[in-house]
Amino acid sequence: MRIGILGTGSVGQTLAGKLLTLGHEVTLGSRTATSSTGTAWAAAAGAKGHSGTFADAADFGEVVINATPGQVALAALEAAGEAALAGKVLVDVSNPLVFGPDGSVTLDPVNTDSVGERIQRRFPEARVVKTLNTLAAPVMVDPARVPGRHNLFVAGDDVEAKGRVTALLESFGWPGADIIDLGGIQAARGMEMLMPFWLGLMKHYGHTDFNYAFQVAD
Amino acid sequence: MRIGILGTGSVGQTLAGKLLTLGHEVTLGSRTATSSTGTAWAAAAGAKGHSGTFADAADFGEVVINATPGQVALAALEAAGEAALAGKVLVDVSNPLVFGPDGSVTLDPVNTDSVGERIQRRFPEARVVKTLNTLAAPVMVDPARVPGRHNLFVAGDDVEAKGRVTALLESFGWPGADIIDLGGIQAARGMEMLMPFWLGLMKHYGHTDFNYAFQVAD
Repeated sequence: MRIGILGTGSVGQTLAGKLLTLGHEVTLGSRTATSSTGTAWAAAAGAKGHSGTFADAADFGEVVINATPGQVALAALEAAGEAALAGKVLVDVSNPLVFGPDGSVTLDPVNTDSVGERIQRRFPEARVVKTLNTLAAPVMVDPARVPGRHNLFVAGDDVEAKGRVTALLESFGWPGADIIDLGGIQAARGMEMLMPFWLGLMKHYGHTDFNYAFQVAD
Repeated sequence: MRIGILGTGSVGQTLAGKLLTLGHEVTLGSRTATSSTGTAWAAAAGAKGHSGTFADAADFGEVVINATPGQVALAALEAAGEAALAGKVLVDVSNPLVFGPDGSVTLDPVNTDSVGERIQRRFPEARVVKTLNTLAAPVMVDPARVPGRHNLFVAGDDVEAKGRVTALLESFGWPGADIIDLGGIQAARGMEMLMPFWLGLMKHYGHTDFNYAFQVAD
């Protein structure tokens, strides 16, 4: 499959690397075609790894992944272009983190809206699926870094799109039974609002190799 | 121990019932001394269960538990009175849920503040510990309703107060190793922001007998 990834940070590169090992072809997009991070990644990635602009990545992908931070996600997708996203599965893995000068971390939007919802509203022809924003990048593509069974979540209005994303996540090593469908894209709100708690746990554990693992009565 | 509980709803009554079975003496407080819920509970509770106003409950308790909803918690504690809370462990189990006319559920405060923090700021002499707001009342006092190991969280600025609350939670049946200390009272923010996600899971599972259970690499 051809996959376009917006964002050349650690999340984008981690997902891109995993997708290459699974045999997919990937274009990693950034603000400019000459991004040194993007071109360096493509040079190391071999024949199936490319870099380009956000628009190049979105045009290229049968599936598009937003791996830019929540604060710039809409601008990156605007640059990608509405036409390039129309009809496509658009996976949003972002969190709307705002880092304050005092070291505080808050969210914007929050509570009455979410990045996932904003993306779906702005690009109604895209089939937005929120997922993977609840854990660290290394665990996203290697669930065995964390012992036992643990959970991923998906939310989106397009059931078929969620099915395709779930299949992709299963190819990463996630058992389908551990992937919880929270319903429509409005559930992105709750998923994004987990982040302050997750950051508290990261401080508590001193690392990011942990994950939500719900225990449930029969 | 003498414990004052503010709030006669299902959370207050569930905690009160458990505390009685553990041999504690409980006063359940509400807005008026003649609250039919409070007096009915006390009549059924036997010699060690009493009802009264918020002030009666706070005066009575060596430990005070806020089991009123987040939207009215500060007013209930104002009615209890600053003097009655000074120096005491004050357990806050509330969530700042706002139920909209359209069926929406949001939080107020959120993101840059929390009920836990507001209570600690307003009553600086109280030793506020946030806990138990992340799960349903029946599971609070009977962790075995949910299979396997699963987690509780505590947050507060007073380390000794957190130790006393942790001991109380252990007496409910929670293994100490499963109770995660998230640090100061500001961590109440992340704990309260779990609620929209938790409500999504409740819809997904169709019941409330589930709980957070973190899996963590060694």
